[in-house]
Amino acid sequence: MAANPLHHDYPWTTEDAPLVVSAPMMKITLAEAAIAASAAGGIGFLAGGFDLTPLSKDLAKTAEIAQAHGLALHQGVLPIGVGFQNWGSDLKLALDALAAHPVAAVWFFAPNQLADLLDWSEQIRTATGGKTKIWIQVGTVAEAIEVARTSKPDVIVIQGSDAGGHGLAQRASLMTLLPEVADALAKDGIRTPLIAAGGIVDGRGAAAALSLGATGVALGTRILASQEAVIAKGYQDEVLRVTDGGTSTVTTTVYDSVRNIHGWPKCYNGRGVANRSYLDALHGMSDEENQELYKGAMKQGDAGWGPDGRMTTYAGTGIGLVSQVASIADIIHSVQQEAVQTLQSSAARFAKS
Amino acid sequence: MAANPLHHDYPWTTEDAPLVVSAPMMKITLAEAAIAASAAGGIGFLAGGFDLTPLSKDLAKTAEIAQAHGLALHQGVLPIGVGFQNWGSDLKLALDALAAHPVAAVWFFAPNQLADLLDWSEQIRTATGGKTKIWIQVGTVAEAIEVARTSKPDVIVIQGSDAGGHGLAQRASLMTLLPEVADALAKDGIRTPLIAAGGIVDGRGAAAALSLGATGVALGTRILASQEAVIAKGYQDEVLRVTDGGTSTVTTTVYDSVRNIHGWPKCYNGRGVANRSYLDALHGMSDEENQELYKGAMKQGDAGWGPDGRMTTYAGTGIGLVSQVASIADIIHSVQQEAVQTLQSSAARFAKS
Repeated sequence: MAANPLHHDYPWTTEDAPLVVSAPMMKITLAEAAIAASAAGGIGFLAGGFDLTPLSKDLAKTAEIAQAHGLALHQGVLPIGVGFQNWGSDLKLALDALAAHPVAAVWFFAPNQLADLLDWSEQIRTATGGKTKIWIQVGTVAEAIEVARTSKPDVIVIQGSDAGGHGLAQRASLMTLLPEVADALAKDGIRTPLIAAGGIVDGRGAAAALSLGATGVALGTRILASQEAVIAKGYQDEVLRVTDGGTSTVTTTVYDSVRNIHGWPKCYNGRGVANRSYLDALHGMSDEENQELYKGAMKQGDAGWGPDGRMTTYAGTGIGLVSQVASIADIIHSVQQEAVQTLQSSAARFAKS
Repeated sequence: MAANPLHHDYPWTTEDAPLVVSAPMMKITLAEAAIAASAAGGIGFLAGGFDLTPLSKDLAKTAEIAQAHGLALHQGVLPIGVGFQNWGSDLKLALDALAAHPVAAVWFFAPNQLADLLDWSEQIRTATGGKTKIWIQVGTVAEAIEVARTSKPDVIVIQGSDAGGHGLAQRASLMTLLPEVADALAKDGIRTPLIAAGGIVDGRGAAAALSLGATGVALGTRILASQEAVIAKGYQDEVLRVTDGGTSTVTTTVYDSVRNIHGWPKCYNGRGVANRSYLDALHGMSDEENQELYKGAMKQGDAGWGPDGRMTTYAGTGIGLVSQVASIADIIHSVQQEAVQTLQSSAARFAKS
């Protein structure tokens, strides 16, 4: 396999290193983050979230920044991607925004049903003459097989259980999910590239994902501690502070409930650092009271986060591996370098002497 | 790092390949499995479980089989390990059994409190003059640090969330747990070797674990489908049948409850294939009724397992990667070979041309 088999489709990406993607995170990875990731030889995804009202404006701003950074259009499209939370997204708004500013890829996640993505895939492909590649995120083998057979995405993103923010409530980590998906697709004669997401924060994780069958990797939690993320200092400080990610984070629907977000398909919840909202809910506090207390915490600014805070710190179990804020370019390059070093030194253990 | 840095301590293990361990699984990995794994260049653990009454007899049988297999004693001890579920284990019974048949390693898991392992470690070390190495299994960074500083085990087993059977209810997978533990120990100047457990069923998983910082790997679910496992055909057939391990398995205490096993520390549950017992409990059936129905299922023999069965199929999320019964020797050798091939072909992707 080539170092970066997707270089051909995304020609600004580094050719001789593992592909590193900056994952869409709602309200956090916007123009600056997306551009920074693509300018560094990765692929940056601007988060569209589920309310696409601001998307046109966000993409217009991204186009401006791209120009300022000297990041050229490729085949007339912005060299970034846009992520959607499909359960709440309006296809018409998406098409309007993409018509004005076409992008190299769209990343679909959490439709009400997988079949909804047929329409999204077809209409976006048609609108940009196939220049916009379709990425679909899944969390089980069955989902991977279904989308591969129906929407036929250009890339399948495999999200393991360590991921921060939303994901399937019940799933395996990349350790088993990735190779099982790879085997199941291969058995079907399907060769769609797999991007691994969930628990990758450094080059060791990236090396592991490549060994498990990934073509490239996506970073989420690591990007929370980037200079380009749009993130409150209180949130970012929590990401740096918290350790032992498997016990400090929990998967729950409480963090949707306190901010009055409904509409996620029932099979999803979100992983974040356990905080006061979570503990109060666990001990029986009503949603209404918890929401009121959350509203109060919103007025505290950065002090609303922290061990006794109520503001949500969505993050993956890799949070304990993040201890410094860095630029997205430095993050991507260090993951690439460490991944290659890790694979080479692991392989060297078994070199015939 | 050497190919197998633990070869020196366990000289029958393969020197030029990754160390592969057959994990203790209660009532399943007994004499035959332990001997087969060690005879194949790995380390086989006989499961002591929590009721150590049969341990002396099991070890005597193991000693006989070892002799029959021509597996020599090393420094006067059996070249295998014994695993304990410490919350229910009697140290005196353990010492008596080990006095008659000392072994190369003991593997501690799930004490009521980690401090209990101080006594176990000290007394067993004293009893065999240090010839029996101490292995301690943990599931969080905090646990790893605590045992490394107190009981000072010779090996720490890191169990990630994909593991089958019992484990901490809340934890990360190996993807983030392993590197975070490695970093935390290194920061403390501790160089205890780490064995990765949870989600490793083939060479890809082993390669991933090595990249994440493991010295060697432990197999559990894969060994369920071995010729040497003591396992009902109904159980083994389920292991071969079930796919999509992240959604087909669940973590729950129901499978302890139906067989009337109490005493596990509260922070543990067990991962197994979702079955009728689980679904009935989910829908509100009482423990008593569920236990009665389980007792009925026990009389069905192999037919008690299966999609509508009630017999427990403890297994990890890697169950979907297991489709064939093989000998433990073939399993260990193929994991070793595939791990090395995977690392070498992954590294070759980034070789400078």
